[in-house]
Amino acid sequence: MKKSMAEKRLIVDMQPIGRRIDVEPGQSILEASRTAGVGLISLCGGEGWCDSCRVRIASGEVNPPSQSEMDTIGEDQIKKGFRLACQVIPVSDVRVDIPPESLSTPQRLQVEGKDFEIPLAPIVRVVDLELSPPTLEDLRADAARVRDALADHGFLESRLELPVLEDLSEGLRKNKWTARFILREGELIAVLPSGVDIFGISVDIGTTKLAIYLVNLLTGEIVEKVGEMNPQIAYGEDIVSRISYATENPEGRQQLQMVLVDVLNTKIQELCTSSGINQDQIVDAVIVGNTAMHHLFTGLPVGQLVFAPYVPALNAPIDFRARDLGIKMAPGSYIHLLPNIAGYVGADHSAVILSTDLWNTKETVIAIDIGTNTEISLVSGGRILSCSCASGPAFEGAHITHGMRAAPGAIERVQIIDEELKIFTIDDQPPVGICGSGILDVVAEMKSANLINEKGAFLEDKRYIRKGKKNNIELLLVPGENAGNQQDITVSRKDVNEIQLAKAAIRAGQDILLKEAGIQPDDIDQVLVAGAFGTYINIANAIKIGMFPEIPLDRFHQVGNAAGMGAIQALLSVEKRNAIEKIIKQVEYIELTTWENFQKVFVRAMYLN
Amino acid sequence: MKKSMAEKRLIVDMQPIGRRIDVEPGQSILEASRTAGVGLISLCGGEGWCDSCRVRIASGEVNPPSQSEMDTIGEDQIKKGFRLACQVIPVSDVRVDIPPESLSTPQRLQVEGKDFEIPLAPIVRVVDLELSPPTLEDLRADAARVRDALADHGFLESRLELPVLEDLSEGLRKNKWTARFILREGELIAVLPSGVDIFGISVDIGTTKLAIYLVNLLTGEIVEKVGEMNPQIAYGEDIVSRISYATENPEGRQQLQMVLVDVLNTKIQELCTSSGINQDQIVDAVIVGNTAMHHLFTGLPVGQLVFAPYVPALNAPIDFRARDLGIKMAPGSYIHLLPNIAGYVGADHSAVILSTDLWNTKETVIAIDIGTNTEISLVSGGRILSCSCASGPAFEGAHITHGMRAAPGAIERVQIIDEELKIFTIDDQPPVGICGSGILDVVAEMKSANLINEKGAFLEDKRYIRKGKKNNIELLLVPGENAGNQQDITVSRKDVNEIQLAKAAIRAGQDILLKEAGIQPDDIDQVLVAGAFGTYINIANAIKIGMFPEIPLDRFHQVGNAAGMGAIQALLSVEKRNAIEKIIKQVEYIELTTWENFQKVFVRAMYLN
Repeated sequence: MKKSMAEKRLIVDMQPIGRRIDVEPGQSILEASRTAGVGLISLCGGEGWCDSCRVRIASGEVNPPSQSEMDTIGEDQIKKGFRLACQVIPVSDVRVDIPPESLSTPQRLQVEGKDFEIPLAPIVRVVDLELSPPTLEDLRADAARVRDALADHGFLESRLELPVLEDLSEGLRKNKWTARFILREGELIAVLPSGVDIFGISVDIGTTKLAIYLVNLLTGEIVEKVGEMNPQIAYGEDIVSRISYATENPEGRQQLQMVLVDVLNTKIQELCTSSGINQDQIVDAVIVGNTAMHHLFTGLPVGQLVFAPYVPALNAPIDFRARDLGIKMAPGSYIHLLPNIAGYVGADHSAVILSTDLWNTKETVIAIDIGTNTEISLVSGGRILSCSCASGPAFEGAHITHGMRAAPGAIERVQIIDEELKIFTIDDQPPVGICGSGILDVVAEMKSANLINEKGAFLEDKRYIRKGKKNNIELLLVPGENAGNQQDITVSRKDVNEIQLAKAAIRAGQDILLKEAGIQPDDIDQVLVAGAFGTYINIANAIKIGMFPEIPLDRFHQVGNAAGMGAIQALLSVEKRNAIEKIIKQVEYIELTTWENFQKVFVRAMYLN
Repeated sequence: MKKSMAEKRLIVDMQPIGRRIDVEPGQSILEASRTAGVGLISLCGGEGWCDSCRVRIASGEVNPPSQSEMDTIGEDQIKKGFRLACQVIPVSDVRVDIPPESLSTPQRLQVEGKDFEIPLAPIVRVVDLELSPPTLEDLRADAARVRDALADHGFLESRLELPVLEDLSEGLRKNKWTARFILREGELIAVLPSGVDIFGISVDIGTTKLAIYLVNLLTGEIVEKVGEMNPQIAYGEDIVSRISYATENPEGRQQLQMVLVDVLNTKIQELCTSSGINQDQIVDAVIVGNTAMHHLFTGLPVGQLVFAPYVPALNAPIDFRARDLGIKMAPGSYIHLLPNIAGYVGADHSAVILSTDLWNTKETVIAIDIGTNTEISLVSGGRILSCSCASGPAFEGAHITHGMRAAPGAIERVQIIDEELKIFTIDDQPPVGICGSGILDVVAEMKSANLINEKGAFLEDKRYIRKGKKNNIELLLVPGENAGNQQDITVSRKDVNEIQLAKAAIRAGQDILLKEAGIQPDDIDQVLVAGAFGTYINIANAIKIGMFPEIPLDRFHQVGNAAGMGAIQALLSVEKRNAIEKIIKQVEYIELTTWENFQKVFVRAMYLN
């Protein structure tokens, strides 16, 4: 019996995305979707105690629901066919409907940053050469012939290493000894047909999202940009759970590395296809990410990042050959990672400092890159102070009753005007949940409309406020009949508290940096708010709930993916690359968790003004 | 019918080596033995026109003999169960007897060279450090902490790259922040427990054999040395057939590279086990080989080596990380390859020039490294002239009727004293064939005893000379009743001619170098004869047949594996490594094939004095 099962692989038809995947007997739909590269959200890492991977079994037979499913999603929903993908095991071919909020793609990604102009001076250089072929009178080895010709063109003492040598002899003969040679710091890294363009890629590896840019290195033009989910989400939603996975599983670190490498290769290939170029024409790359992403991508150890004093394995910038990780670019090309600042202030924040010109300003400027971890840098009086705030995933929709990512159908704007509640969803789809900017609006508007007090406590007997099923007080944001999934969308006191915790962390970071610099909020000339979430939020509402200090609105600038822009700058200018390396050494990192009055500052920041 | 065959894998039991291997239906025993790593000799590359892969089917069913088998080994032998492994396809489980001469191992390997003394100054340096662990007051990244400590010990601006960083954090914590750090040209390449020894390996990759040395880099001691067959033999006996294989098969080049990598890894592991050390303690390697072996090992293209003007892809010395090829040494360790001189004068000959001090001598010295290709260098009047002679595999036993490698049972010495023929075999085993030194003796002794004339023609009516089966004249060296395999061991006129061709090539090379230098044989102060074959030959006999010029015997020195010794010198002394790079640039390579009077010189060299 067991044997005949083992031989039969079952098919899971996933809708609406239209993917058909194989399932091994005994494998859960979540496991199968990981293998197949379908991005199902799994906040608890597949342990059945959250409902983020909720799916509906449309047809086919599956195992009976587990107790944790009964507890988590309830009997009513199970009767309607809902199950947790991590718990449900097909016993026949099945068809599964995936609600938008369970699917990690598609969704809106931030790939655009503030415009910038920098001198074009990439690390790679180009030279077109016509070589004389070998004869009995000129028996120089192919490598020596190339080296001599490069020397004639001023590239003295160039190095030719294995990755390029492997194809050099055939390439020279095929191209009849005429080719475009690409050099990087004296090393020949690619040999291309004469006259072709060369490109670089910049990548911002976020904990949840990747932004990938294809850039023409001869013109500086951003040819194309794509976003993609971080495939590591399948192994844990946040950094700590991924580090656990990496350290507790024998091949965990390598697995987390390889899923990143795979998705990068896929994206590179897509970019090449859509731009009509060859992978060999991609001759350089700059990658940024927080310290954990930086380490997991490069294969560095991460265990020490979760134990005090949270030191990185490496802060310094690092270069290695793309092919050392199997990244499909020109054979000899390198990947550059910007320096990290601390265990929780990574290369992505170095990129923010770079692209915002923070390091160059004479003003007092604070840059805030909001995410699951929020990094803040304050420039004041010639000092750069940086810290990291554990703002948590609430603004990504996690830990919020009806929270979701910024996907179609997410409520992204909320207004309460004259006691009338108005919602706006992404792509104007029927509402299915609330994303970060929406929940921030909810809290701000509830406070303005006096539905909650400054501690986040709900005031009863107000319109939209009701008793929930478990006798708790809640805000009814969207009644089930208006919702895309026929369920009431509500906001609980706990949800409001989650937002208070998140914004308090961010505010406490700002307050402590100001104290360290010995200045007042009003001394700040500019507040730069970076990141996808930071770009979409209503700044006035963020001030209203006390996430930012109360200073004039025109001092705030939403600068988009400043990290990605920093990566592009470092790609286009070796001077920028060198500059940030120096700057980072001057950054004063402030560890908040051991800062003397942190707790006091944090509790004060919890108040909704 | 076909399907059921495809499902059943047959077993081939190989005796006397005691290996049982799987055969896929339709696969020849030769193919199966390649897959299983059993070293069957296959001179013709499995095409059925030589008999080097002769085996005996002891039991089981096989396909009927092919026409080429009938032609090559004859009906008599086929009746006795002999077949060619490349032609015979099992149809049931079979037991196969492999005669010693068909098995490429075990056999005597040359791993000892001339002794030498050089100053011990390897490229790697060692420093023991005790680091202070991170605290909240000292949040330096692990890499920065190490870098700072190295700087305190005079290693300024050291580089820490991925291979070492991957394990650094855990290693430091495990060793409680005390460790032995290994640096190479400013790069940290390994972190070991305090006080352990460090080692390097030197490898001479010959077309047929590998010699591998484990060397203590702190004492200079050669800890252990092992020999092994070149596993590429399974893909072709000589360089040209391997290059064909590499260029004609899609993955050919990579396959030939990977079998070398695999055998090196196996040998490294064996050396570590027998010496009680860890692979991480092997922190450097120097590898030499002829140009084709050099290119096939590094993965460089070889196609151009078989077309005039036979230029290498690379002559310059090259370093790359061991792990780029998957060679299991310390994580960040490098492999260094000495420079090549020309398409057929490779890094092994550079090593000969190095270890023989040829580059340093004021005398007139000629160094001859005899193999399938024989490389010769002449130092005279401040010049170094080098050439390559296509001496062929006759001295390896190939193309000789009863030729075999220098394995047990091979006739290695022959004397004819007072018309009495005496033979000596390796390990005093019953004779099964003749190896290179034996066949050289045969020719010299036959000439002295007037059994052949100076053209190699047999003189009839002499003792031991008889009419062979095909009516040809031959020398009966060992009658079947005295032979290990019950077969007559004979020497034909063709065999003598093969030796004449081989020795003529070697002699012509010497003569042309002398002419180029404008000197006479008697001007030579020393003749250094290198290589395994060169070590075992009777020099007087080699002079007698005209392989070497007639100069006093005491000017000849048999220097053993001078190539391997050069590799060890380059391992122990970075100065030697640098010296040979410079010397090689001064070498004048003489291309014999286009040398004006080559044909004339060669024909004259054919004479047996």
